Amino acid sequence: MTSLVPKVVTFGEAMLRLVPPLNLRIEQAHSFTTFVGGGELNVAVGAARLGLNTEWVSRLPETPMGRLVLNRAREFGVETARVVWTPNDRVGLYFLEMGAAPRTHKVFYDRSGSAISKIRPGEVDWKAAFAGASLFHTSGITPALSPSVAEATTEALIAAKEAGLKVTYDLNYRVKLWTEAEAQKYNESIMQYVDVLITTEEDTERVFKVKEKNYDDVAKKLYDQFGFTAVAITLRDNLSVWRNDWTSIVYDGSKILRDMKYELECVDRLGGGDSYVAGFVYGWLTGDLDKANRYGNATCALKHSQHGDFSLSTLQEVEAVVAGGGNLRIER
Amino acid sequence: MTSLVPKVVTFGEAMLRLVPPLNLRIEQAHSFTTFVGGGELNVAVGAARLGLNTEWVSRLPETPMGRLVLNRAREFGVETARVVWTPNDRVGLYFLEMGAAPRTHKVFYDRSGSAISKIRPGEVDWKAAFAGASLFHTSGITPALSPSVAEATTEALIAAKEAGLKVTYDLNYRVKLWTEAEAQKYNESIMQYVDVLITTEEDTERVFKVKEKNYDDVAKKLYDQFGFTAVAITLRDNLSVWRNDWTSIVYDGSKILRDMKYELECVDRLGGGDSYVAGFVYGWLTGDLDKANRYGNATCALKHSQHGDFSLSTLQEVEAVVAGGGNLRIER
Amino acid sequence: MTSLVPKVVTFGEAMLRLVPPLNLRIEQAHSFTTFVGGGELNVAVGAARLGLNTEWVSRLPETPMGRLVLNRAREFGVETARVVWTPNDRVGLYFLEMGAAPRTHKVFYDRSGSAISKIRPGEVDWKAAFAGASLFHTSGITPALSPSVAEATTEALIAAKEAGLKVTYDLNYRVKLWTEAEAQKYNESIMQYVDVLITTEEDTERVFKVKEKNYDDVAKKLYDQFGFTAVAITLRDNLSVWRNDWTSIVYDGSKILRDMKYELECVDRLGGGDSYVAGFVYGWLTGDLDKANRYGNATCALKHSQHGDFSLSTLQEVEAVVAGGGNLRIER
Amino acid sequence: MTSLVPKVVTFGEAMLRLVPPLNLRIEQAHSFTTFVGGGELNVAVGAARLGLNTEWVSRLPETPMGRLVLNRAREFGVETARVVWTPNDRVGLYFLEMGAAPRTHKVFYDRSGSAISKIRPGEVDWKAAFAGASLFHTSGITPALSPSVAEATTEALIAAKEAGLKVTYDLNYRVKLWTEAEAQKYNESIMQYVDVLITTEEDTERVFKVKEKNYDDVAKKLYDQFGFTAVAITLRDNLSVWRNDWTSIVYDGSKILRDMKYELECVDRLGGGDSYVAGFVYGWLTGDLDKANRYGNATCALKHSQHGDFSLSTLQEVEAVVAGGGNLRIER
Amino acid sequence: MTSLVPKVVTFGEAMLRLVPPLNLRIEQAHSFTTFVGGGELNVAVGAARLGLNTEWVSRLPETPMGRLVLNRAREFGVETARVVWTPNDRVGLYFLEMGAAPRTHKVFYDRSGSAISKIRPGEVDWKAAFAGASLFHTSGITPALSPSVAEATTEALIAAKEAGLKVTYDLNYRVKLWTEAEAQKYNESIMQYVDVLITTEEDTERVFKVKEKNYDDVAKKLYDQFGFTAVAITLRDNLSVWRNDWTSIVYDGSKILRDMKYELECVDRLGGGDSYVAGFVYGWLTGDLDKANRYGNATCALKHSQHGDFSLSTLQEVEAVVAGGGNLRIER
Amino acid sequence: MTSLVPKVVTFGEAMLRLVPPLNLRIEQAHSFTTFVGGGELNVAVGAARLGLNTEWVSRLPETPMGRLVLNRAREFGVETARVVWTPNDRVGLYFLEMGAAPRTHKVFYDRSGSAISKIRPGEVDWKAAFAGASLFHTSGITPALSPSVAEATTEALIAAKEAGLKVTYDLNYRVKLWTEAEAQKYNESIMQYVDVLITTEEDTERVFKVKEKNYDDVAKKLYDQFGFTAVAITLRDNLSVWRNDWTSIVYDGSKILRDMKYELECVDRLGGGDSYVAGFVYGWLTGDLDKANRYGNATCALKHSQHGDFSLSTLQEVEAVVAGGGNLRIER
Repeated sequence: MTSLVPKVVTFGEAMLRLVPPLNLRIEQAHSFTTFVGGGELNVAVGAARLGLNTEWVSRLPETPMGRLVLNRAREFGVETARVVWTPNDRVGLYFLEMGAAPRTHKVFYDRSGSAISKIRPGEVDWKAAFAGASLFHTSGITPALSPSVAEATTEALIAAKEAGLKVTYDLNYRVKLWTEAEAQKYNESIMQYVDVLITTEEDTERVFKVKEKNYDDVAKKLYDQFGFTAVAITLRDNLSVWRNDWTSIVYDGSKILRDMKYELECVDRLGGGDSYVAGFVYGWLTGDLDKANRYGNATCALKHSQHGDFSLSTLQEVEAVVAGGGNLRIER
Repeated sequence: MTSLVPKVVTFGEAMLRLVPPLNLRIEQAHSFTTFVGGGELNVAVGAARLGLNTEWVSRLPETPMGRLVLNRAREFGVETARVVWTPNDRVGLYFLEMGAAPRTHKVFYDRSGSAISKIRPGEVDWKAAFAGASLFHTSGITPALSPSVAEATTEALIAAKEAGLKVTYDLNYRVKLWTEAEAQKYNESIMQYVDVLITTEEDTERVFKVKEKNYDDVAKKLYDQFGFTAVAITLRDNLSVWRNDWTSIVYDGSKILRDMKYELECVDRLGGGDSYVAGFVYGWLTGDLDKANRYGNATCALKHSQHGDFSLSTLQEVEAVVAGGGNLRIER
Repeated sequence: MTSLVPKVVTFGEAMLRLVPPLNLRIEQAHSFTTFVGGGELNVAVGAARLGLNTEWVSRLPETPMGRLVLNRAREFGVETARVVWTPNDRVGLYFLEMGAAPRTHKVFYDRSGSAISKIRPGEVDWKAAFAGASLFHTSGITPALSPSVAEATTEALIAAKEAGLKVTYDLNYRVKLWTEAEAQKYNESIMQYVDVLITTEEDTERVFKVKEKNYDDVAKKLYDQFGFTAVAITLRDNLSVWRNDWTSIVYDGSKILRDMKYELECVDRLGGGDSYVAGFVYGWLTGDLDKANRYGNATCALKHSQHGDFSLSTLQEVEAVVAGGGNLRIER
Repeated sequence: MTSLVPKVVTFGEAMLRLVPPLNLRIEQAHSFTTFVGGGELNVAVGAARLGLNTEWVSRLPETPMGRLVLNRAREFGVETARVVWTPNDRVGLYFLEMGAAPRTHKVFYDRSGSAISKIRPGEVDWKAAFAGASLFHTSGITPALSPSVAEATTEALIAAKEAGLKVTYDLNYRVKLWTEAEAQKYNESIMQYVDVLITTEEDTERVFKVKEKNYDDVAKKLYDQFGFTAVAITLRDNLSVWRNDWTSIVYDGSKILRDMKYELECVDRLGGGDSYVAGFVYGWLTGDLDKANRYGNATCALKHSQHGDFSLSTLQEVEAVVAGGGNLRIER
Repeated sequence: MTSLVPKVVTFGEAMLRLVPPLNLRIEQAHSFTTFVGGGELNVAVGAARLGLNTEWVSRLPETPMGRLVLNRAREFGVETARVVWTPNDRVGLYFLEMGAAPRTHKVFYDRSGSAISKIRPGEVDWKAAFAGASLFHTSGITPALSPSVAEATTEALIAAKEAGLKVTYDLNYRVKLWTEAEAQKYNESIMQYVDVLITTEEDTERVFKVKEKNYDDVAKKLYDQFGFTAVAITLRDNLSVWRNDWTSIVYDGSKILRDMKYELECVDRLGGGDSYVAGFVYGWLTGDLDKANRYGNATCALKHSQHGDFSLSTLQEVEAVVAGGGNLRIER
Repeated sequence: MTSLVPKVVTFGEAMLRLVPPLNLRIEQAHSFTTFVGGGELNVAVGAARLGLNTEWVSRLPETPMGRLVLNRAREFGVETARVVWTPNDRVGLYFLEMGAAPRTHKVFYDRSGSAISKIRPGEVDWKAAFAGASLFHTSGITPALSPSVAEATTEALIAAKEAGLKVTYDLNYRVKLWTEAEAQKYNESIMQYVDVLITTEEDTERVFKVKEKNYDDVAKKLYDQFGFTAVAITLRDNLSVWRNDWTSIVYDGSKILRDMKYELECVDRLGGGDSYVAGFVYGWLTGDLDKANRYGNATCALKHSQHGDFSLSTLQEVEAVVAGGGNLRIER
């Protein structure tokens, strides 16, 4: 039975999130709630919840903290057999302060020297990982971690294309990790392996220097420049910290695919973009780009109501929202 | 002094509510906050807080879980001397996931085999329970628990009318407990004992197949069909999960009584309808149907700001809201 | 370096705040989260966070509860060397119930017999305290604590003026502590020592019997009556319990200084007015009255997103909001 | 049925206990777990759990804190109808630091000005309270609260004897409340109304200046001096903070009744002595002084394993221990 | 690499454990900490942590509570692909009260009607499950759940033997599930499929009516009666609730294998016996019966220091204790 | 007044401690309780609590995590004006698993790249720091952090001696930070600046290769080798994880000073050695070496009952234990 379920492989870092309870500032904190999160693991978990087979590839230290990350991945059904283990290095962390208007959420990374930042090409048997798989996903965070991770990312992308996989890529520019120039240089070098680019207007301007008069034109410009299968632009409107609007567009070379705008009550917006990718990947592998976009948005919308980096929505939940989830009555 | 305070008797199940903290999904939970709740106990507590004498009748197992339910009822001043105890059976539970738009709250019942579901006619001395009492309240959940509870409910209703009590009944259809046909058959058989029916447009359509073009007509149709003293229709507007509007109408055979619309910030909406009943009962027994409706709405509005199934508002708090509680300044 | 930083001295009570978790009512509580707060300590902490040197003067008992208050003041950089210690008396408390519309927040004071309420003139060496200081702040709560505290407050105000300090005064009328007549009599006697009065329209009506047709006129009337350097009127709009709007005006004798209106998501509004004072004091000592008002509002706006009585915003955070903090994107 | 159950009436103060979690010092605390406790309420709860009818008489303020105390009493089945309510005054508190060897537990009282400390003779209808009751219990803490409470205590004791009740009295000397001389004078004046004195060797030395060479002689001396029905001396051995030994003796005028020594793991020893009284009262009213002593010790031993001031043991649990509770296997 | 690791399959129920925090009684609880546990899942987790491949077979409902159980199994590396899913039924629960001497731990089961209690023969493809596996483990709890589970258990045992697996069986008599006679009848019928019986003196007396003058003779009697490969008798000494001693013996037909006695500080003893099995299985599959016994004891000893039903000890930790873990210095 | 209080300066790292609640393993953790700790800050806090003026010198990043460390130091009265701030680097962390016999506590450091590890000579104005100070304390952990910290440590030691301060040094060997050879080489080079060496038998063997037949001889050997004023050897006996015995000896060149053995219930033993130093320093500066030793032991004994790295005992508490703290009755 499971042989018919498409398999998705992702590659990237996962960190421990440490967040003070009750909107407390970090300086006030006497305890931290902890979650595990990282773009590509978030995608793997979110997609596994929707029913895909997913595998997450990374590098972790042989410590309780490393195993904690592993356990959270396994807990939600992600395969982890190809995680590379090292007796050295550390697990990256990020501290999070939850805001409320007019104070925004703040993320403080403490990820330097993490195990994955020291991965080198050749450590992962990508050929085996991709056997029977349908899609590979990574993001612009992974190659930004260090030059050796960038090399390993390129290696993985090439292997994915050689194995005939579809490739999705979330551009995700992180200013703390590399400069715009570095990001541009690397990302331009690997766009040839990417089928679907998922990004925001802001990131494309910073990384690819694309500035158009509206989202549609940004998508078209990127499509034309890199020859993708499609470009997805996610659109968030920060009405306040607790209320956001969300939608996205997809350009497939011939038309702009649009979806409804979701009005969100934000329990936790971190990982929202990754949950869009999870839904997108599910929709694409089981349907078409329009389904991808609509499932991406529904998965993302539901994620905002859930605590932690992961989307835990089930396929049934996502499909109820896609089908017109305006009903907010208690479900008994 | 207390002899002048009207007494209300209610009959039904109370369960342990298990809810993960922090909007977590049940699958993520490593702890559950627990409350005790159940429609008729909620009414008894809410009415006791407003100053009425109240007694709750039910059936509980002789276990710490059974006594936990008892303790919570006593804590807020509800009489429990006629609870039937059994060495067997269990306390029903419900698991709750708190949502945020577009994810709705979800209730997962685990109430099968509860002690009250096995109560049979003759186990409660209703004549004694109703001595000196003014009003009996139960809901459509109680008879749905099992055929024997349905029989016991009918027994109680008949005894209540024989003892000259007023009877309020909250139609509350629960699809997991019985079919619409079963609900219709039973409920039609006992409407003769009911003085005031409290319900929603949706439930009356499902149970009594009443479908009119507006709420007023639904109330009138029910009034005409069953010959009540009055019909109350509660009206909730789910603006989002965290924001609701609430009001209600009462039809007394000659006119539609209306009230202001309350704008609610929803800490916990479960038990909201029961708190309407609590306020309604207080207002009716100490005034008239218009007071009943207005106190019902104010009690219900305040309940939404309180955690747990019970309304803990005092009479002073309810009357401040009825008198025009638009003042949201800090009360010092 | 620190010799160039202006020093602010404040005088007043700080209490333990006891608040049930999760919006629970006090009657339901099995635990209380605790913070330390009190108008003048809140100002001292808020201003210290912005970079000023601050000292808080008070009276505390030699108990763990007294030291707990001391520790919280020191934790955020407030000098406490002149706190008066006593082997007797107690630390005042206040219990807090957090509301949600239509239920407002409620504060229940339990501060009778606190150590500071027994302070008498002569116990503090104000001359030493004010050496090198730029500004003294207290509020109408302090003299309301007891006649001896009122005398000590007057003593401090006189000493402040003799030492050439600027004096800010938050009128803050507390009906539980004294009558309007008592408040009027005392406050009128000490307005001669006050440079800037910070207040609300409501409090000025209750204390000074000033009732004008709009805020501007209230400020002008007070200015004319008492001969201040300036009058600040803070303006809060309780849209709901979770959402407030906030701004303020300052009248400097020649013009009304206005600022933008902030839309606030209220994690905790207690101490909001004090954080306005903290920002005002910082802005005034490092700029002018317009800067005072704008920094006051930004500091106050940010405070509403923070748990506890203290404003923990840094100067960098406040200045980002002043500069146009509409950006609610995650800061990474 | 309930008419055959003996009724016990107690009179005294109950406070909120505030204790930091996790053995934290008060100065470190950012939250407090809260319980309600006070000698005579502890006895009423403990005895109610064993099956007696119990009523607690006290005086409470009309605040959420006052109702919180009431609710906890009702929760465990104690009657509270004669509690005197006042719009003024406060609920007493005590802060608790839990120790570990060599640091002992520390209690910091904050009970001055509590509602009960202002009760005066005539406020309670003792005649009605004692109708149908079998026993009255109070302790040396109650009269120590204030002279007016002492008068009210004497009034209650006289009324109890007039109504034919048995009277138990726990000497409980509290140095913070009165001097040894005051305690001696008052206690000597009311021993004529006491049937059974329950105390420790240390307290009898401080209050009655009784110093003998062993416990037995202390009991005999007290018996001879005051003409009691019996004297109970409780014997605790503080092996460490986490491990205590406990037993007690009772002298009935003819012989010393002894019991086994219990080896205790101390989750919470506060209220231990009160739970001895609860078990004693149950045993005495349903048996004899030997049963009283043995049930007192078993109830006390079990209390040490329970968090909070109350003994929550059931009769079944106590009888299992009395019957030889050496079995520490898991009970399934 | 993983193909060389022995695989263990277990079959049985896992429940949600609900335990009040802080030694609170269930009647006092306002929250429950939750763990997942059940004998055979505990063994699977414990053995997986030591490095074996393990698979747990059970039946779960398609609810968040069912998936919660699944997730916890996966989290610690247990394979779950053959869990049978049902749209009906429930997850069993057990409530736990943690004791302290002289109050013992109490378990209150609420497992009636659980999904696994309705499993029938034929629902699991045991042949596939056992392909490549080395050992099958179940316990006397599984067949006690219902007659149909007993049939399914027999089916599994037969299949295991046919597939050439070793079989371990923990006798574990549960009086709430079946009578001694029922247990005897069933267990005698399936001992033919068991290679190693793991039990206690008490259970063998209740189930097999074996009563000898010492442990050694019990083991020999059982060995002779049923023709096992070996019999293990675990020996716990309840010094108190917080301190236990633990060891065990194994009889292999020729000699009694003994081990050191462990002195345990008991954070949580539930699941202790299962962790012995986990260590035993690891030791047996990678060595001999003496290694099995010593690894079983060390794993069990370490389990007592860990919260929850699962043993989370790593092989490295167990081997350090086996090698002489008397060193209690901090490991840095 | 404060000018008469001796001042102590310490230098070293402080980290965030992250510890799972409830004896949970790190792999199970969904939250971490957090404390701040580090040998030299622990000493500064412990000594400040006893009444000394103390200053802690370190290097911290300008982040909320850096300020969190600062705040905790200030909270308990430690001066921090000379902490060096950097826009780069991080705060070191350590994860802690609390054990229970036979599982020991485990510390997992994540301190690489911390701000202090990059401090260089010349960054601290030691001359100013030592003006008016009586004693300087650091430990063998500080120079082990990096070669540049070692240089800075030597610089501080030389400056301390030049300024006429007493110097105490806790040898504290950390195998994760440097080799025994590196530790020996550095420590031998700076022993000339040390007046009192505080250490354990184990550490002296590893660092100085001193192995004698008993503690006394170790102390004498060290004394003779390095020419100290005194050598203190602390002696811990791990009876179990929850129970330890503690004492120490001091050799002053002429005699071995001994003290009573403390029986400890261990809430948290981390920081125990540092609290010995805190008490030692207090006793020495206000008395002699015998007082130093006895106050050190009492402070250390009390620390074991307190959660977190800091000793929060007051002078009154320590002196009560020194005076014979065998009384474990509740202090009211």
